[in-house]
Amino acid sequence: MDRVVVAACQLELAVGSVDGNRALAADAIRAAAGAGAQLVVLPELTPSGYVFDSLDEARSLAEPLDGDTVREWTSLAAELDLVVVGGICERHGDGMPRNTSVIVDASGLRTAYRKVHLWGDEPDFFTPGDQPPQVVDVRGIRLATVICYDLEFPEWIRIVALAGAELLAAPTNWPTSTPREQPTSVAVVRVQADAGVNRMPVVAADRCGHERGVDWIGGSCIVSADGELLAGPPPAAEPALLIAEVDLVPARDKRTGPRNHPLDDRRPDLYAALAETPSIINPPSL
Amino acid sequence: MDRVVVAACQLELAVGSVDGNRALAADAIRAAAGAGAQLVVLPELTPSGYVFDSLDEARSLAEPLDGDTVREWTSLAAELDLVVVGGICERHGDGMPRNTSVIVDASGLRTAYRKVHLWGDEPDFFTPGDQPPQVVDVRGIRLATVICYDLEFPEWIRIVALAGAELLAAPTNWPTSTPREQPTSVAVVRVQADAGVNRMPVVAADRCGHERGVDWIGGSCIVSADGELLAGPPPAAEPALLIAEVDLVPARDKRTGPRNHPLDDRRPDLYAALAETPSIINPPSL
Repeated sequence: MDRVVVAACQLELAVGSVDGNRALAADAIRAAAGAGAQLVVLPELTPSGYVFDSLDEARSLAEPLDGDTVREWTSLAAELDLVVVGGICERHGDGMPRNTSVIVDASGLRTAYRKVHLWGDEPDFFTPGDQPPQVVDVRGIRLATVICYDLEFPEWIRIVALAGAELLAAPTNWPTSTPREQPTSVAVVRVQADAGVNRMPVVAADRCGHERGVDWIGGSCIVSADGELLAGPPPAAEPALLIAEVDLVPARDKRTGPRNHPLDDRRPDLYAALAETPSIINPPSL
Repeated sequence: MDRVVVAACQLELAVGSVDGNRALAADAIRAAAGAGAQLVVLPELTPSGYVFDSLDEARSLAEPLDGDTVREWTSLAAELDLVVVGGICERHGDGMPRNTSVIVDASGLRTAYRKVHLWGDEPDFFTPGDQPPQVVDVRGIRLATVICYDLEFPEWIRIVALAGAELLAAPTNWPTSTPREQPTSVAVVRVQADAGVNRMPVVAADRCGHERGVDWIGGSCIVSADGELLAGPPPAAEPALLIAEVDLVPARDKRTGPRNHPLDDRRPDLYAALAETPSIINPPSL
Protein backbone atom coordinates (compact mmCIF):
# COMPACT_ATOMS: atom_id res chain seq x y z
CA MET A 1 0.00 0.00 0.00
CA ASP A 2 1.54 3.30 -1.13
CA ARG A 3 -1.00 5.62 0.46
CA VAL A 4 -2.89 5.25 3.72
CA VAL A 5 -5.69 7.32 5.17
CA VAL A 6 -4.90 8.07 8.79
CA ALA A 7 -6.86 9.69 11.59
CA ALA A 8 -5.68 11.48 14.72
CA CYS A 9 -8.44 11.61 17.33
CA GLN A 10 -8.11 14.49 19.78
CA LEU A 11 -10.28 13.55 22.78
CA GLU A 12 -11.46 15.28 25.93
CA LEU A 13 -10.70 12.54 28.43
CA ALA A 14 -11.26 12.52 32.20
CA VAL A 15 -9.09 10.75 34.74
CA GLY A 16 -10.83 7.73 36.24
CA SER A 17 -13.80 7.76 33.86
CA VAL A 18 -12.78 4.56 32.19
CA ASP A 19 -16.17 3.70 30.71
CA GLY A 20 -16.71 7.22 29.49
CA ASN A 21 -13.23 7.45 28.00
CA ARG A 22 -13.63 4.12 26.24
CA ALA A 23 -16.93 5.27 24.80
CA LEU A 24 -15.31 8.49 23.54
CA ALA A 25 -12.58 6.43 21.92
CA ALA A 26 -15.04 4.03 20.30
CA ASP A 27 -17.10 6.90 18.94
CA ALA A 28 -13.94 8.50 17.57
CA ILE A 29 -12.84 5.27 15.91
CA ARG A 30 -16.25 4.94 14.26
CA ALA A 31 -16.17 8.53 13.11
CA ALA A 32 -12.68 8.05 11.70
CA ALA A 33 -13.80 4.92 9.86
CA GLY A 34 -16.72 6.89 8.46
CA ALA A 35 -14.20 9.39 7.09
CA GLY A 36 -12.27 6.61 5.41
CA ALA A 37 -9.51 6.06 7.93
CA GLN A 38 -7.48 2.86 7.68
CA LEU A 39 -5.34 3.72 10.72
CA VAL A 40 -6.71 5.51 13.80
CA VAL A 41 -4.48 7.02 16.48
CA LEU A 42 -5.78 7.84 19.97
CA PRO A 43 -4.14 9.78 22.83
CA GLU A 44 -1.77 8.56 25.51
CA LEU A 45 -3.51 6.80 28.44
CA THR A 46 -6.88 6.97 26.72
CA PRO A 47 -9.03 4.82 29.05
CA SER A 48 -7.49 5.94 32.34
CA GLY A 49 -6.78 9.64 31.87
CA TYR A 50 -3.48 11.14 32.95
CA VAL A 51 -3.29 13.07 36.24
CA PHE A 52 -3.30 10.30 38.85
CA ASP A 53 -3.32 11.45 42.46
CA SER A 54 -1.59 8.36 43.78
CA LEU A 55 0.08 5.16 42.72
CA ASP A 56 -2.93 3.30 44.13
CA GLU A 57 -5.17 5.22 41.77
CA ALA A 58 -2.91 4.46 38.81
CA ARG A 59 -2.94 0.77 39.76
CA SER A 60 -6.70 0.77 40.06
CA LEU A 61 -7.02 2.20 36.54
CA ALA A 62 -4.46 -0.14 34.99
CA GLU A 63 -5.52 -3.03 32.80
CA PRO A 64 -3.73 -5.94 31.18
CA LEU A 65 -2.87 -6.19 27.50
CA ASP A 66 -5.72 -8.67 27.09
CA GLY A 67 -8.13 -6.42 28.98
CA ASP A 68 -11.32 -4.68 28.00
CA THR A 69 -9.70 -1.85 26.05
CA VAL A 70 -7.58 -3.97 23.75
CA ARG A 71 -10.54 -6.35 23.33
CA GLU A 72 -12.83 -3.50 22.33
CA TRP A 73 -10.27 -1.96 19.96
CA THR A 74 -9.73 -5.38 18.37
CA SER A 75 -13.48 -5.75 17.79
CA LEU A 76 -13.66 -2.31 16.25
CA ALA A 77 -10.59 -2.99 14.10
CA ALA A 78 -12.25 -6.16 12.77
CA GLU A 79 -15.66 -4.60 12.27
CA LEU A 80 -14.34 -1.44 10.59
CA ASP A 81 -11.33 -2.94 8.80
CA LEU A 82 -8.74 -0.63 10.28
CA VAL A 83 -5.78 -0.46 12.65
CA VAL A 84 -6.02 1.21 16.07
CA VAL A 85 -3.08 2.69 17.98
CA GLY A 86 -3.67 4.14 21.42
CA GLY A 87 -2.31 4.52 24.91
CA ILE A 88 -3.35 2.56 27.98
CA CYS A 89 -2.27 2.35 31.61
CA GLU A 90 -0.92 -1.20 31.54
CA ARG A 91 -1.18 -3.46 34.59
CA HIS A 92 2.01 -5.36 35.34
CA GLY A 93 2.77 -8.29 37.64
CA ASP A 94 5.37 -6.29 39.57
CA GLY A 95 2.73 -3.84 40.77
CA MET A 96 4.02 -0.85 38.84
CA PRO A 97 1.96 0.15 35.80
CA ARG A 98 3.50 0.88 32.41
CA ASN A 99 2.64 3.82 30.16
CA THR A 100 1.96 1.75 27.08
CA SER A 101 0.92 2.24 23.48
CA VAL A 102 -0.68 -0.69 21.68
CA ILE A 103 -1.04 -1.46 17.98
CA VAL A 104 -4.19 -3.48 17.41
CA ASP A 105 -5.67 -4.90 14.23
CA ALA A 106 -8.45 -7.38 13.48
CA SER A 107 -6.21 -10.19 14.69
CA GLY A 108 -5.74 -8.54 18.08
CA LEU A 109 -2.72 -7.03 19.80
CA ARG A 110 0.26 -6.73 17.44
CA THR A 111 2.71 -4.98 19.74
CA ALA A 112 2.86 -3.11 23.05
CA TYR A 113 5.45 -0.36 23.50
CA ARG A 114 6.26 0.95 26.98
CA LYS A 115 7.24 4.62 27.14
CA VAL A 116 10.96 4.91 27.67
CA HIS A 117 11.27 8.65 28.38
CA LEU A 118 9.01 9.59 31.29
CA TRP A 119 7.79 13.14 31.88
CA GLY A 120 7.00 15.02 35.08
CA ASP A 121 5.60 12.84 37.86
CA GLU A 122 5.23 9.79 35.64
CA PRO A 123 8.08 7.96 37.45
CA ASP A 124 5.81 7.90 40.51
CA PHE A 125 3.26 5.87 38.58
CA PHE A 126 5.12 3.98 35.87
CA THR A 127 8.21 1.89 35.36
CA PRO A 128 9.85 3.16 32.16
CA GLY A 129 10.28 0.82 29.24
CA ASP A 130 13.66 -0.57 28.34
CA GLN A 131 13.08 -1.69 24.75
CA PRO A 132 12.83 0.18 21.46
CA PRO A 133 9.50 0.09 19.64
CA GLN A 134 8.95 -2.93 17.46
CA VAL A 135 8.10 -2.38 13.82
CA VAL A 136 4.88 -4.16 12.91
CA ASP A 137 3.75 -5.05 9.42
CA VAL A 138 0.09 -4.04 9.22
CA ARG A 139 -1.78 -3.82 5.93
CA GLY A 140 1.52 -3.79 4.12
CA ILE A 141 2.81 -0.85 6.16
CA ARG A 142 5.76 -0.98 8.54
CA LEU A 143 4.25 0.77 11.55
CA ALA A 144 5.74 1.69 14.94
CA THR A 145 4.57 3.67 17.95
CA VAL A 146 6.17 5.88 20.58
CA ILE A 147 4.58 8.04 23.28
CA CYS A 148 4.60 11.80 23.87
CA TYR A 149 7.88 12.86 25.54
CA ASP A 150 9.70 10.21 23.47
CA LEU A 151 9.19 12.59 20.53
CA GLU A 152 11.60 15.06 22.18
CA PHE A 153 14.46 12.58 21.92
CA PRO A 154 15.41 12.63 18.25
CA GLU A 155 17.85 9.80 18.86
CA TRP A 156 14.87 7.60 19.79
CA ILE A 157 12.92 8.54 16.69
CA ARG A 158 16.01 7.92 14.58
CA ILE A 159 16.27 4.42 16.03
CA VAL A 160 12.69 3.75 14.94
CA ALA A 161 13.48 4.95 11.42
CA LEU A 162 16.65 2.86 11.31
CA ALA A 163 14.54 -0.15 12.29
CA GLY A 164 12.62 0.37 9.07
CA ALA A 165 9.41 2.05 10.23
CA GLU A 166 7.55 3.81 7.41
CA LEU A 167 4.96 5.43 9.63
CA LEU A 168 5.04 6.44 13.29
CA ALA A 169 1.93 6.70 15.47
CA ALA A 170 2.39 8.78 18.60
CA PRO A 171 -0.25 8.95 21.32
CA THR A 172 0.48 12.11 23.33
CA ASN A 173 -0.74 14.17 26.28
CA TRP A 174 0.99 17.54 25.90
CA PRO A 175 0.31 19.57 29.04
CA THR A 176 0.27 23.36 29.13
CA SER A 177 0.52 23.75 32.87
CA THR A 178 4.17 22.91 33.37
CA PRO A 179 6.93 25.44 33.82
CA ARG A 180 7.64 24.94 30.16
CA GLU A 181 4.45 26.47 28.89
CA GLN A 182 4.95 26.78 25.16
CA PRO A 183 2.85 27.69 22.20
CA THR A 184 1.30 24.73 20.44
CA SER A 185 3.57 25.43 17.53
CA VAL A 186 6.71 24.28 19.33
CA ALA A 187 5.33 20.81 20.14
CA VAL A 188 4.16 20.48 16.56
CA VAL A 189 7.49 21.72 15.22
CA ARG A 190 9.29 18.91 16.99
CA VAL A 191 7.00 16.38 15.33
CA GLN A 192 7.57 17.99 11.94
CA ALA A 193 11.33 17.71 12.44
CA ASP A 194 11.06 14.10 13.66
CA ALA A 195 9.20 13.25 10.46
CA GLY A 196 11.26 15.35 8.07
CA VAL A 197 14.76 14.34 9.11
CA ASN A 198 13.78 10.67 8.91
CA ARG A 199 11.37 10.88 5.99
CA MET A 200 8.94 8.98 8.19
CA PRO A 201 5.39 10.39 8.44
CA VAL A 202 4.16 10.90 12.00
CA VAL A 203 0.61 10.92 13.35
CA ALA A 204 0.32 12.52 16.80
CA ALA A 205 -2.98 12.26 18.68
CA ASP A 206 -3.13 14.67 21.61
CA ARG A 207 -5.85 15.28 24.16
CA CYS A 208 -7.73 18.29 25.42
CA GLY A 209 -9.79 19.18 28.46
CA HIS A 210 -8.93 19.91 32.08
CA GLU A 211 -7.81 17.43 34.73
CA ARG A 212 -6.83 18.32 38.31
CA GLY A 213 -5.17 21.58 37.37
CA VAL A 214 -3.66 20.41 34.11
CA ASP A 215 -4.74 21.46 30.62
CA TRP A 216 -3.56 20.08 27.32
CA ILE A 217 -2.56 21.99 24.25
CA GLY A 218 -4.58 19.94 21.78
CA GLY A 219 -1.69 19.78 19.35
CA SER A 220 -2.72 16.75 17.31
CA CYS A 221 -1.19 16.70 13.85
CA ILE A 222 -0.48 14.56 10.82
CA VAL A 223 2.90 15.22 9.23
CA SER A 224 4.25 14.03 5.87
CA ALA A 225 7.61 12.43 5.16
CA ASP A 226 8.79 15.91 4.13
CA GLY A 227 7.93 17.33 7.55
CA GLU A 228 4.94 19.25 6.24
CA LEU A 229 1.66 19.49 8.10
CA LEU A 230 -1.03 17.48 6.30
CA ALA A 231 -3.62 18.12 9.03
CA GLY A 232 -3.76 19.97 12.32
CA PRO A 233 -3.08 21.23 14.77
CA PRO A 234 -6.76 22.10 15.38
CA PRO A 235 -7.43 25.80 15.95
CA ALA A 236 -8.44 25.18 19.55
CA ALA A 237 -7.77 22.63 22.29
CA GLU A 238 -11.11 20.97 21.68
CA PRO A 239 -12.15 17.52 20.53
CA ALA A 240 -11.23 17.06 16.89
CA LEU A 241 -10.91 14.42 14.22
CA LEU A 242 -8.01 14.94 11.83
CA ILE A 243 -7.90 12.97 8.60
CA ALA A 244 -5.18 12.90 5.97
CA GLU A 245 -3.96 10.63 3.24
CA VAL A 246 -0.29 9.90 3.80
CA ASP A 247 2.08 9.05 0.96
CA LEU A 248 4.43 6.24 1.97
CA VAL A 249 6.53 6.32 -1.20
CA PRO A 250 9.02 8.90 0.10
CA ALA A 251 9.15 7.02 3.41
CA ARG A 252 10.35 3.95 1.52
CA ASP A 253 12.53 5.60 -1.10
CA LYS A 254 14.05 7.93 1.51
CA ARG A 255 16.24 9.76 -1.00
CA THR A 256 16.23 13.54 -0.72
CA GLY A 257 18.27 14.15 -3.84
CA PRO A 258 20.29 12.25 -6.42
CA ARG A 259 23.10 11.75 -3.92
CA ASN A 260 21.38 12.10 -0.54
CA HIS A 261 19.54 9.80 1.84
CA PRO A 262 18.87 10.82 5.44
CA LEU A 263 19.86 7.45 6.89
CA ASP A 264 22.74 6.56 4.56
CA ASP A 265 24.24 10.04 5.00
CA ARG A 266 24.59 9.52 8.75
CA ARG A 267 28.10 9.21 10.20
CA PRO A 268 27.63 6.51 12.86
CA ASP A 269 31.42 6.21 13.22
CA LEU A 270 31.28 9.70 14.78
CA TYR A 271 28.21 9.14 16.99
CA ALA A 272 29.70 7.05 19.81
CA ALA A 273 29.12 9.85 22.34
CA LEU A 274 25.37 9.33 22.02
CA ALA A 275 25.52 5.91 23.62
CA GLU A 276 27.98 6.78 26.36
CA THR A 277 26.81 6.47 29.95
CA PRO A 278 26.95 8.77 31.75
CA SER A 279 26.61 11.37 29.06
CA ILE A 280 29.48 13.81 28.75
CA ILE A 281 28.03 17.13 29.81
CA ASN A 282 29.94 20.37 30.11
CA PRO A 283 33.50 19.26 29.55
CA PRO A 284 36.19 21.94 29.47
CA SER A 285 36.00 24.14 26.40
CA LEU A 286 38.75 25.81 24.39
CA MET B 1 27.00 36.86 30.13
CA ASP B 2 23.36 35.82 30.40
CA ARG B 3 22.09 37.54 27.29
CA VAL B 4 23.80 38.09 23.98
CA VAL B 5 22.73 40.12 20.98
CA VAL B 6 23.21 38.02 17.86
CA ALA B 7 22.94 38.77 14.17
CA ALA B 8 22.24 36.50 11.23
CA CYS B 9 23.35 38.08 7.97
CA GLN B 10 21.52 36.81 4.90
CA LEU B 11 23.69 37.72 1.93
CA GLU B 12 23.35 37.60 -1.85
CA LEU B 13 26.67 36.01 -2.72
CA ALA B 14 28.06 35.13 -6.14
CA VAL B 15 30.33 32.20 -6.90
CA GLY B 16 33.87 33.29 -7.68
CA SER B 17 33.39 36.95 -6.71
CA VAL B 18 35.65 36.68 -3.71
CA ASP B 19 36.37 40.40 -3.32
CA GLY B 20 32.72 41.29 -3.76
CA ASN B 21 31.56 38.61 -1.35
CA ARG B 22 34.08 39.69 1.26
CA ALA B 23 32.92 43.26 0.92
CA LEU B 24 29.29 42.20 1.37
CA ALA B 25 30.29 40.29 4.49
CA ALA B 26 32.27 43.22 5.90
CA ASP B 27 29.37 45.59 5.28
CA ALA B 28 27.02 43.15 6.99
CA ILE B 29 29.30 42.78 10.00
CA ARG B 30 29.46 46.57 10.34
CA ALA B 31 25.70 46.87 10.02
CA ALA B 32 25.23 44.16 12.64
CA ALA B 33 27.62 45.96 15.00
CA GLY B 34 25.66 49.14 14.43
CA ALA B 35 22.55 47.28 15.56
CA GLY B 36 24.29 46.16 18.73
CA ALA B 37 25.34 42.65 17.73
CA GLN B 38 27.97 40.91 19.84
CA LEU B 39 27.98 37.78 17.67
CA VAL B 40 27.57 37.88 13.87
CA VAL B 41 26.84 34.79 11.80
CA LEU B 42 27.45 34.68 8.04
CA PRO B 43 26.46 32.07 5.45
CA GLU B 44 28.24 28.89 4.42
CA LEU B 45 31.10 29.44 1.94
CA THR B 46 30.78 33.21 2.17
CA PRO B 47 33.85 34.35 0.21
CA SER B 48 33.77 31.68 -2.49
CA GLY B 49 30.09 31.13 -3.22
CA TYR B 50 28.65 27.65 -3.55
CA VAL B 51 27.99 26.22 -7.03
CA PHE B 52 31.48 25.29 -8.23
CA ASP B 53 31.66 23.95 -11.76
CA SER B 54 34.79 21.89 -11.15
CA LEU B 55 37.18 20.81 -8.46
CA ASP B 56 39.76 23.10 -10.03
CA GLU B 57 37.45 26.04 -9.51
CA ALA B 58 36.84 25.04 -5.89
CA ARG B 59 40.59 24.77 -5.35
CA SER B 60 41.17 28.16 -6.93
CA LEU B 61 38.65 29.74 -4.54
CA ALA B 62 39.95 27.98 -1.44
CA GLU B 63 42.01 29.83 1.13
CA PRO B 64 43.92 28.82 4.24
CA LEU B 65 42.75 29.40 7.80
CA ASP B 66 45.27 32.24 8.06
CA GLY B 67 44.14 33.73 4.77
CA ASP B 68 42.59 37.02 3.83
CA THR B 69 39.08 36.22 5.02
CA VAL B 70 39.98 35.13 8.54
CA ARG B 71 42.39 38.07 8.75
CA GLU B 72 39.70 40.52 7.74
CA TRP B 73 37.11 39.03 10.10
CA THR B 74 39.66 39.15 12.93
CA SER B 75 40.27 42.85 12.26
CA LEU B 76 36.55 43.55 12.23
CA ALA B 77 36.05 41.51 15.42
CA ALA B 78 38.73 43.59 17.15
CA GLU B 79 37.53 46.92 15.80
CA LEU B 80 33.85 46.28 16.53
CA ASP B 81 34.23 44.16 19.68
CA LEU B 82 32.30 41.17 18.46
CA VAL B 83 32.60 37.55 17.41
CA VAL B 84 32.28 36.45 13.77
CA VAL B 85 31.20 33.00 12.60
CA GLY B 86 31.13 32.23 8.91
CA GLY B 87 31.85 29.67 6.24
CA ILE B 88 34.86 29.52 3.97
CA CYS B 89 36.20 27.16 1.31
CA GLU B 90 39.30 26.00 3.15
CA ARG B 91 42.49 25.13 1.29
CA HIS B 92 44.12 21.92 2.46
CA GLY B 93 47.54 20.40 1.85
CA ASP B 94 46.04 17.24 0.36
CA GLY B 95 44.52 19.21 -2.51
CA MET B 96 40.90 18.68 -1.51
CA PRO B 97 39.18 21.71 -0.01
CA ARG B 98 37.12 21.54 3.19
CA ASN B 99 33.71 23.13 3.73
CA THR B 100 34.64 24.94 6.91
CA SER B 101 33.06 27.24 9.46
CA VAL B 102 35.34 29.45 11.54
CA ILE B 103 34.79 31.16 14.86
CA VAL B 104 36.85 34.34 15.00
CA ASP B 105 37.25 36.92 17.74
CA ALA B 106 39.63 39.81 18.32
CA SER B 107 42.39 37.33 19.13
CA GLY B 108 41.98 35.62 15.78
CA LEU B 109 40.81 32.13 14.78
CA ARG B 110 39.33 30.26 17.74
CA THR B 111 38.21 27.09 15.98
CA ALA B 112 37.62 25.69 12.51
CA TYR B 113 34.91 23.08 12.00
CA ARG B 114 34.82 20.99 8.81
CA LYS B 115 31.35 19.99 7.64
CA VAL B 116 30.79 16.33 8.39
CA HIS B 117 27.53 15.70 6.51
CA LEU B 118 27.94 16.70 2.87
CA TRP B 119 25.01 17.57 0.60
CA GLY B 120 24.50 17.07 -3.12
CA ASP B 121 27.66 17.37 -5.20
CA GLU B 122 29.76 18.60 -2.28
CA PRO B 123 31.73 15.30 -2.15
CA ASP B 124 33.14 16.27 -5.57
CA PHE B 125 34.68 19.40 -4.04
CA PHE B 126 35.25 18.71 -0.35
CA THR B 127 36.62 16.06 1.95
CA PRO B 128 34.11 15.71 4.80
CA GLY B 129 35.21 16.44 8.34
CA ASP B 130 35.76 13.66 10.82
CA GLN B 131 35.62 15.54 14.10
CA PRO B 132 32.76 16.98 16.15
CA PRO B 133 32.62 20.75 16.58
CA GLN B 134 34.74 22.12 19.39
CA VAL B 135 33.05 24.26 22.01
CA VAL B 136 34.79 27.62 22.32
CA ASP B 137 34.51 29.97 25.25
CA VAL B 138 33.97 33.43 23.75
CA ARG B 139 32.84 36.41 25.82
CA GLY B 140 31.77 34.00 28.54
CA ILE B 141 29.61 31.99 26.14
CA ARG B 142 30.19 28.39 25.19
CA LEU B 143 29.80 28.62 21.43
CA ALA B 144 29.95 25.98 18.70
CA THR B 145 29.32 25.90 14.97
CA VAL B 146 28.00 23.39 12.44
CA ILE B 147 27.14 23.83 8.76
CA CYS B 148 23.85 23.55 6.86
CA TYR B 149 23.04 19.86 6.18
CA ASP B 150 24.55 18.98 9.60
CA LEU B 151 21.37 20.51 11.06
CA GLU B 152 19.37 17.62 9.56
CA PHE B 153 21.22 15.10 11.72
CA PRO B 154 19.77 15.57 15.18
CA GLU B 155 22.32 13.14 16.57
CA TRP B 156 25.04 15.59 15.54
CA ILE B 157 23.33 18.54 17.17
CA ARG B 158 22.77 16.47 20.31
CA ILE B 159 26.51 15.74 20.45
CA VAL B 160 27.19 19.48 20.36
CA ALA B 161 24.74 20.04 23.23
CA LEU B 162 26.25 17.17 25.21
CA ALA B 163 29.64 18.81 24.76
CA GLY B 164 28.26 21.79 26.64
CA ALA B 165 27.51 24.30 23.91
CA GLU B 166 25.13 27.06 25.01
CA LEU B 167 24.72 28.60 21.59
CA LEU B 168 25.07 27.15 18.10
CA ALA B 169 25.98 29.22 15.04
CA ALA B 170 25.09 27.61 11.74
CA PRO B 171 26.20 29.04 8.41
CA THR B 172 23.89 27.56 5.76
CA ASN B 173 23.16 27.56 2.03
CA TRP B 174 19.68 26.05 1.72
CA PRO B 175 18.99 25.47 -1.98
CA THR B 176 15.51 25.42 -3.47
CA SER B 177 16.41 23.82 -6.76
CA THR B 178 16.93 20.26 -5.61
CA PRO B 179 14.37 17.48 -5.98
CA ARG B 180 13.49 18.19 -2.37
CA GLU B 181 12.00 21.59 -2.97
CA GLN B 182 10.32 22.49 0.30
CA PRO B 183 8.72 25.53 1.79
CA THR B 184 11.06 27.67 3.84
CA SER B 185 9.12 26.63 6.89
CA VAL B 186 10.41 23.06 6.86
CA ALA B 187 14.08 24.11 6.98
CA VAL B 188 13.29 26.53 9.76
CA VAL B 189 11.25 23.93 11.63
CA ARG B 190 14.26 21.64 11.78
CA VAL B 191 16.31 24.42 13.35
CA GLN B 192 13.55 25.12 15.86
CA ALA B 193 13.53 21.46 16.86
CA ASP B 194 17.32 21.30 17.05
CA ALA B 195 17.23 24.22 19.47
CA GLY B 196 14.19 23.18 21.47
CA VAL B 197 15.06 19.56 22.17
CA ASN B 198 18.52 20.60 23.37
CA ARG B 199 17.60 23.92 24.96
CA MET B 200 20.42 25.39 22.90
CA PRO B 201 19.66 28.57 20.93
CA VAL B 202 20.58 28.38 17.24
CA VAL B 203 21.49 31.17 14.82
CA ALA B 204 21.24 30.13 11.17
CA ALA B 205 22.55 32.49 8.48
CA ASP B 206 21.37 31.51 5.03
CA ARG B 207 22.03 33.07 1.65
CA CYS B 208 19.92 34.29 -1.23
CA GLY B 209 20.42 35.05 -4.88
CA HIS B 210 20.88 32.91 -7.96
CA GLU B 211 23.96 30.91 -8.92
CA ARG B 212 24.27 28.65 -11.99
CA GLY B 213 20.70 27.43 -11.81
CA VAL B 214 20.47 27.25 -8.05
CA ASP B 215 18.40 29.54 -5.82
CA TRP B 216 18.38 29.70 -2.04
CA ILE B 217 15.41 29.89 0.24
CA GLY B 218 16.71 32.71 2.41
CA GLY B 219 15.64 30.93 5.58
CA SER B 220 17.88 32.70 8.09
CA CYS B 221 16.52 32.56 11.62
CA ILE B 222 17.37 33.08 15.27
CA VAL B 223 15.77 30.51 17.57
CA SER B 224 15.52 30.52 21.36
CA ALA B 225 16.32 27.70 23.75
CA ASP B 226 12.59 26.93 23.77
CA GLY B 227 12.58 26.43 20.00
CA GLU B 228 10.71 29.66 19.36
CA LEU B 229 11.56 32.02 16.52
CA LEU B 230 13.13 35.21 17.87
CA ALA B 231 13.81 36.59 14.39
CA GLY B 232 13.27 35.46 10.82
CA PRO B 233 12.86 33.91 8.47
CA PRO B 234 12.73 37.08 6.35
CA PRO B 235 9.58 37.44 4.24
CA ALA B 236 11.54 37.03 1.02
CA ALA B 237 14.79 35.43 -0.15
CA GLU B 238 16.54 38.78 -0.19
CA PRO B 239 19.46 40.24 1.71
CA ALA B 240 18.49 40.75 5.35
CA LEU B 241 19.98 41.49 8.73
CA LEU B 242 18.29 39.66 11.60
CA ILE B 243 18.98 40.80 15.15
CA ALA B 244 17.77 39.26 18.40
CA GLU B 245 18.77 39.18 22.03
CA VAL B 246 19.18 35.57 23.09
CA ASP B 247 18.67 34.43 26.68
CA LEU B 248 21.35 31.93 27.69
CA VAL B 249 19.90 31.16 31.13
CA PRO B 250 17.65 28.31 29.92
CA ALA B 251 20.54 27.00 27.82
CA ARG B 252 22.56 26.63 31.01
CA ASP B 253 19.85 25.55 33.42
CA LYS B 254 18.41 23.14 30.85
CA ARG B 255 15.56 22.00 33.09
CA THR B 256 12.16 21.85 31.45
CA GLY B 257 10.23 21.10 34.61
CA PRO B 258 10.83 20.21 38.25
CA ARG B 259 11.83 16.70 37.26
CA ASN B 260 12.92 17.04 33.65
CA HIS B 261 16.11 17.89 31.79
CA PRO B 262 16.52 17.16 28.09
CA LEU B 263 20.03 15.76 28.44
CA ASP B 264 19.68 13.96 31.78
CA ASP B 265 16.43 12.33 30.63
CA ARG B 266 18.18 10.64 27.74
CA ARG B 267 18.55 6.84 27.83
CA PRO B 268 22.03 6.34 26.38
CA ASP B 269 21.96 2.71 27.51
CA LEU B 270 19.31 2.19 24.82
CA TYR B 271 20.97 4.22 22.07
CA ALA B 272 23.71 1.82 20.93
CA ALA B 273 22.08 1.37 17.52
CA LEU B 274 22.90 4.99 16.68
CA ALA B 275 26.62 4.29 16.62
CA GLU B 276 26.46 0.97 14.82
CA THR B 277 28.14 0.69 11.43
CA PRO B 278 26.61 -0.20 9.09
CA SER B 279 23.30 1.12 10.30
CA ILE B 280 20.55 -1.46 10.68
CA ILE B 281 18.06 -0.56 8.01
CA ASN B 282 14.91 -2.50 7.19
CA PRO B 283 15.33 -5.57 9.39
CA PRO B 284 12.49 -8.10 9.38
CA SER B 285 9.37 -6.81 11.10
CA LEU B 286 6.76 -8.64 13.20
